[in-house]
Amino acid sequence: MPSNDRREFFTALDRRCKWIKNYILHPRFVGRFSPAEIQWAVTAYVRYGGKRLRPAILLFSCGAVGGDERQAIPAAAAVEIFHTWTLVHDDIIDRDPMRRGQATVHQRFFDHYDMKPADCSLPVDEARHYGVSLAILTGDIQHGWGISMMTELATRRGVTSDITLKLIDDLDTYVLNTLVEGEVLDIQYSHQPLEALTPEDIETMLWKKTGALYQFCGRAGAMIGLGKRKHPYIEAVSEFAALCGTAFQLQDDILGVVGNQEVIGKPVGSDLREGKKTLVVHYAYQNASLSEKKLISGVLGNPKADESQIRRVIQALRDLGGIKIVNQRAKDLIAKAQNYLQALPENQYRAWLKQWADYMVQREF
Amino acid sequence: MPSNDRREFFTALDRRCKWIKNYILHPRFVGRFSPAEIQWAVTAYVRYGGKRLRPAILLFSCGAVGGDERQAIPAAAAVEIFHTWTLVHDDIIDRDPMRRGQATVHQRFFDHYDMKPADCSLPVDEARHYGVSLAILTGDIQHGWGISMMTELATRRGVTSDITLKLIDDLDTYVLNTLVEGEVLDIQYSHQPLEALTPEDIETMLWKKTGALYQFCGRAGAMIGLGKRKHPYIEAVSEFAALCGTAFQLQDDILGVVGNQEVIGKPVGSDLREGKKTLVVHYAYQNASLSEKKLISGVLGNPKADESQIRRVIQALRDLGGIKIVNQRAKDLIAKAQNYLQALPENQYRAWLKQWADYMVQREF
Repeated sequence: MPSNDRREFFTALDRRCKWIKNYILHPRFVGRFSPAEIQWAVTAYVRYGGKRLRPAILLFSCGAVGGDERQAIPAAAAVEIFHTWTLVHDDIIDRDPMRRGQATVHQRFFDHYDMKPADCSLPVDEARHYGVSLAILTGDIQHGWGISMMTELATRRGVTSDITLKLIDDLDTYVLNTLVEGEVLDIQYSHQPLEALTPEDIETMLWKKTGALYQFCGRAGAMIGLGKRKHPYIEAVSEFAALCGTAFQLQDDILGVVGNQEVIGKPVGSDLREGKKTLVVHYAYQNASLSEKKLISGVLGNPKADESQIRRVIQALRDLGGIKIVNQRAKDLIAKAQNYLQALPENQYRAWLKQWADYMVQREF
Repeated sequence: MPSNDRREFFTALDRRCKWIKNYILHPRFVGRFSPAEIQWAVTAYVRYGGKRLRPAILLFSCGAVGGDERQAIPAAAAVEIFHTWTLVHDDIIDRDPMRRGQATVHQRFFDHYDMKPADCSLPVDEARHYGVSLAILTGDIQHGWGISMMTELATRRGVTSDITLKLIDDLDTYVLNTLVEGEVLDIQYSHQPLEALTPEDIETMLWKKTGALYQFCGRAGAMIGLGKRKHPYIEAVSEFAALCGTAFQLQDDILGVVGNQEVIGKPVGSDLREGKKTLVVHYAYQNASLSEKKLISGVLGNPKADESQIRRVIQALRDLGGIKIVNQRAKDLIAKAQNYLQALPENQYRAWLKQWADYMVQREF
């Protein structure tokens, strides 16, 4: 894209990023959380940063159908917090110590279990359990916080109660159930041998884990923008966003395998050690020789794999074409997604949606 | 109370218990959950039984202010499921293996981690982590399920969208935050020495953990019944329910210490082993001799305490008057609560609310 357009797009993205951060961290919300360490925890990942890709697609979708995107800000903020609680709980499940380059919630409470009460000391197992316990509760609070933000569509932004309730129900049933089902499959796949899974199994799991929430972002933005529950634009934006979401996750899986720590915000190889069955690994494995298969299997799901083993596996994944195939698949999904944009009126927001989709698969690795 | 009234009250309670169970287990909800083991898990505690005390107070409150309690059923069912997800997560946090006489969710997934995939076997630590992971996700789904049920007030029962949204916001901010704050304090108190806590600290924690949700039940029932957001009846029922909730929790703490396994549905002494700082323990400790203090401290928070130690501590708690003082405190709260009922019109529902309150502190121990 021309560099002027590119600059404008990133400026637009950045502006919305700030709207969302300010909305989320408003004292009327933050003041609700107590004690102090819970207030820290529920806002931590938001303060750590993040690209706010979900809020952006929601706001752009609202604008693209001719709506006033400021009306949709509570939904965009809600989606970001909704995504955040799933990260906090997933980080417990994946035993990830880092997120966005800083300590995950459970890890922070484990490291500083004595943040409060200051006068106690715990054996290491107890401290770890304390970390997990407080992180579970942190995610629970954030879940409720997201729903509470959604109610502000009606109470502060003039969206009809009917649409507001419909969106709340959608988010907390269809999206939530799909997302958790994807997470359950992800956990179960990590305990299964690679050969037991097809690429379709893995892509369906990715769609559930990520695509459903992106789809919701498109749909919610368009519904708010149109003030209607049904309209061809709503369908078009939903399909667009769902495909982009899956493409995003494919790209994320590539970064999770080969990205450096600075880019991905967590130690190199942690997805491999955790045994994540990504498409990258799947395709590479298909093309692997017997000795390469042995190398990959020895690291996948082995929390004790050392750095040199990890490095060798990453090189094998590159050499065997796993990364190239998955990146191409992500690009194909994006092209398919962009076709849906033709159904929308031509305007600045539609152009940003297109740029946003390209950005999904151009992220560095 | 006369035995006729008593029979009628329990019949009324039982009928509502069935309404709620049928509503919750309706195929339109249960069909949403997948894979099969998650469908099992999200409905498990409801199928295990339970007294549905919270739904009952919500429905009675609706009737007491002159409303049609059938209109309030989605809220009553939502409150039961909301309570259920907090149990699933609390059971992870408290490491309880049993609930209502059967396996807790995390324990069940740990014992039968191979429910699916059937062809894998895991080391014990991995199986335990699998159990915790799936129980976290189970509670998350139930949280969303509860909110989705609340939306049915408007979409299926003719409650205004305005009141429906207000109740959703109340439940997922004020009630949720208060409840989680209580749970965080409970965890932190369990790591503090008994001497560091006052009875007020403990009772405030109990109020947060339990009273806030009961208060919501009274308020929600009255708001739905009146079709209004403000009314003196709403205040009266809220205060009544909040006090009953705290009394209920005090009685529950007594049962948790001295109830037999059949009544409480979990192993005798588990609250002591977990280190729960109950008022029973607090008051007994105040009256204890140095050797009794040593006995109590040796068991409290000691997961390895054996049965004979547990039995001796329970006897000491009885002998030192801890149980008697707390039971009296619960009765005082109930008496105070019942005063608020005077503000309501005299009718059958008001009588049931009174009987319900008495039942709170008469539960067997």
